[in-house]
Amino acid sequence: MKKRIVSFENVSISASASVVGKHEALGPMGDSFDYRDMSDAFGAKTWEKAESAMQKKAFEVLLDKADLIEEDIDAMFAGDLQNQCVGSSYGLMDFNVPYFGLYGACSTAAESLMLSAMCVSGGHYRRCAAVTSSHYLAAERQYRSPIEYGAQRSPTAQWTVTGAAAFAVERGEGKARITEAMPGMVVEKGINDASNMGAAMAPAAADTLLAYFKESRLSPSDFDAIVTGDLGFEGGRVLCELLAAEGLDIHEQYNDCGVLIYDRIRQDKHAGGSGCGCSAVVLSAYYLKLFACQKIKNMLFLGTGAMMSPSSIQQGLAIPAVAHLIRLQA
Amino acid sequence: MKKRIVSFENVSISASASVVGKHEALGPMGDSFDYRDMSDAFGAKTWEKAESAMQKKAFEVLLDKADLIEEDIDAMFAGDLQNQCVGSSYGLMDFNVPYFGLYGACSTAAESLMLSAMCVSGGHYRRCAAVTSSHYLAAERQYRSPIEYGAQRSPTAQWTVTGAAAFAVERGEGKARITEAMPGMVVEKGINDASNMGAAMAPAAADTLLAYFKESRLSPSDFDAIVTGDLGFEGGRVLCELLAAEGLDIHEQYNDCGVLIYDRIRQDKHAGGSGCGCSAVVLSAYYLKLFACQKIKNMLFLGTGAMMSPSSIQQGLAIPAVAHLIRLQA
Repeated sequence: MKKRIVSFENVSISASASVVGKHEALGPMGDSFDYRDMSDAFGAKTWEKAESAMQKKAFEVLLDKADLIEEDIDAMFAGDLQNQCVGSSYGLMDFNVPYFGLYGACSTAAESLMLSAMCVSGGHYRRCAAVTSSHYLAAERQYRSPIEYGAQRSPTAQWTVTGAAAFAVERGEGKARITEAMPGMVVEKGINDASNMGAAMAPAAADTLLAYFKESRLSPSDFDAIVTGDLGFEGGRVLCELLAAEGLDIHEQYNDCGVLIYDRIRQDKHAGGSGCGCSAVVLSAYYLKLFACQKIKNMLFLGTGAMMSPSSIQQGLAIPAVAHLIRLQA
Repeated sequence: MKKRIVSFENVSISASASVVGKHEALGPMGDSFDYRDMSDAFGAKTWEKAESAMQKKAFEVLLDKADLIEEDIDAMFAGDLQNQCVGSSYGLMDFNVPYFGLYGACSTAAESLMLSAMCVSGGHYRRCAAVTSSHYLAAERQYRSPIEYGAQRSPTAQWTVTGAAAFAVERGEGKARITEAMPGMVVEKGINDASNMGAAMAPAAADTLLAYFKESRLSPSDFDAIVTGDLGFEGGRVLCELLAAEGLDIHEQYNDCGVLIYDRIRQDKHAGGSGCGCSAVVLSAYYLKLFACQKIKNMLFLGTGAMMSPSSIQQGLAIPAVAHLIRLQA
């Protein structure tokens, strides 16, 4: 078997920033985010422009928190869920920073961190930024229908997080070191229900985790946390079952950003949060803080992405997914 | 000023493959492409699926030409123009190769080559594949309207190339060495006419070229060819004018893949070819062959991408663009 784990020495996430909308602000980690807009509009006149404004804000807050200027960022890796990733291209065009556009669906935060780490580790750049976002109202009308239509949501449906996060990745001992990365393969196991993306993505997460534990010869108990981006309640359960069938028990370490971001009782978001912004803001506002106060020291973070489009669903295709893994250590 | 040129030692494009549709097969380089499908369908039942089939074919032909198997490719960088980049995710999901999804609009070929070179040069991977595509009929109905509607095309409109190309990037002296890369910044100069993407992208190409010549202290006469991806007749002229205004004359070395791929008299494609596949198939089938027969030894290749979406145009936004540069040497 070819080696899939890429190891890094002395690369870390040195700073991060999170920006969210109303529902996230009212959730259990509401106070932890750096910036909240209770109108979800971020000063813009359309939801699509609001997403761009949110990315811009996340990058500005990152620079501010890290006491950096544009000039200090050698390159940015960015992406979102909008068609042609316009959330990112419009959101970041005001900054004079070389731009790499990514599309990994909801796995984009992990993908951007992984590529940032590769470029810094390889000596090509001193410091990169990874910026991702999603916006509930922009996503609803693009993928499903405008919320004004009042369409009923399926119990397995997830709620796209309105949020953006930006991370600075550079050499040194930052908030958390990125010590390993394992990019995922595209996996499709026949799920064609676009209202059950957790189930479509779980096999990809299982594929990456099984390959990781096999190659690393580590076990789940070596980690304080094993966290997926947005499998939600449904997908998380499927993941644990798929792994259990292969003899791997992760339930003690396992959690999911889509499960954590909303209060299931008080805020009914069905199967949990999702979107490029979901894993990004939870990593920034919650897990990196757990690293900072030394509550966790060793974590696997899996970005999970469902790589379909409304057209591919209409044409009857099943949903391919990808899960990109990074290992964070204190 | 921060250093923007990234240099590589001993990294090269070792093999490539190109797959095209009918109009490209009937163009001036028709015989040079590795595979042609005169139906544009590539055995699929929809144009979107045809694009995926084309990417799959390009990757298969690459493996075949280079005498490689999937296992020999450590990672692939892929992208296309379809919403959520489903051309790539569906096209490449059958291969057990770690997958990085990119979105750089028509600049994706250069972006994928540049990131492949960084990962190989940094020692993270032995060999990467860069795969990109576009399909005229999938693009028309997504960006504009189905061709069955018979909408009249503007004189400055370009014709999306039906084509996919795959490149293998690894250490050693391959067909052409990738010696430098300069990722572009997102540039928007007020063009909001989606039928004139050449003019929208030309300022981004000018921005990258001016920065490159300033930082490298080289001049256009140091190169045998300076080639943009798909500025077409309109954008190419704008680029040369923008550079001339800054005292840089590239007209002797300059060409554009979108200008080269169709015969302007015999095939009326208005302002020329465009799309992720345009620069990719012309680089594979034309420029890499010029390297092979030693007709050129030193080339700047600029992927040019217009980073708008139909929604952003409908909302009255101008078109941001990006131009990623790689330097190829014999």
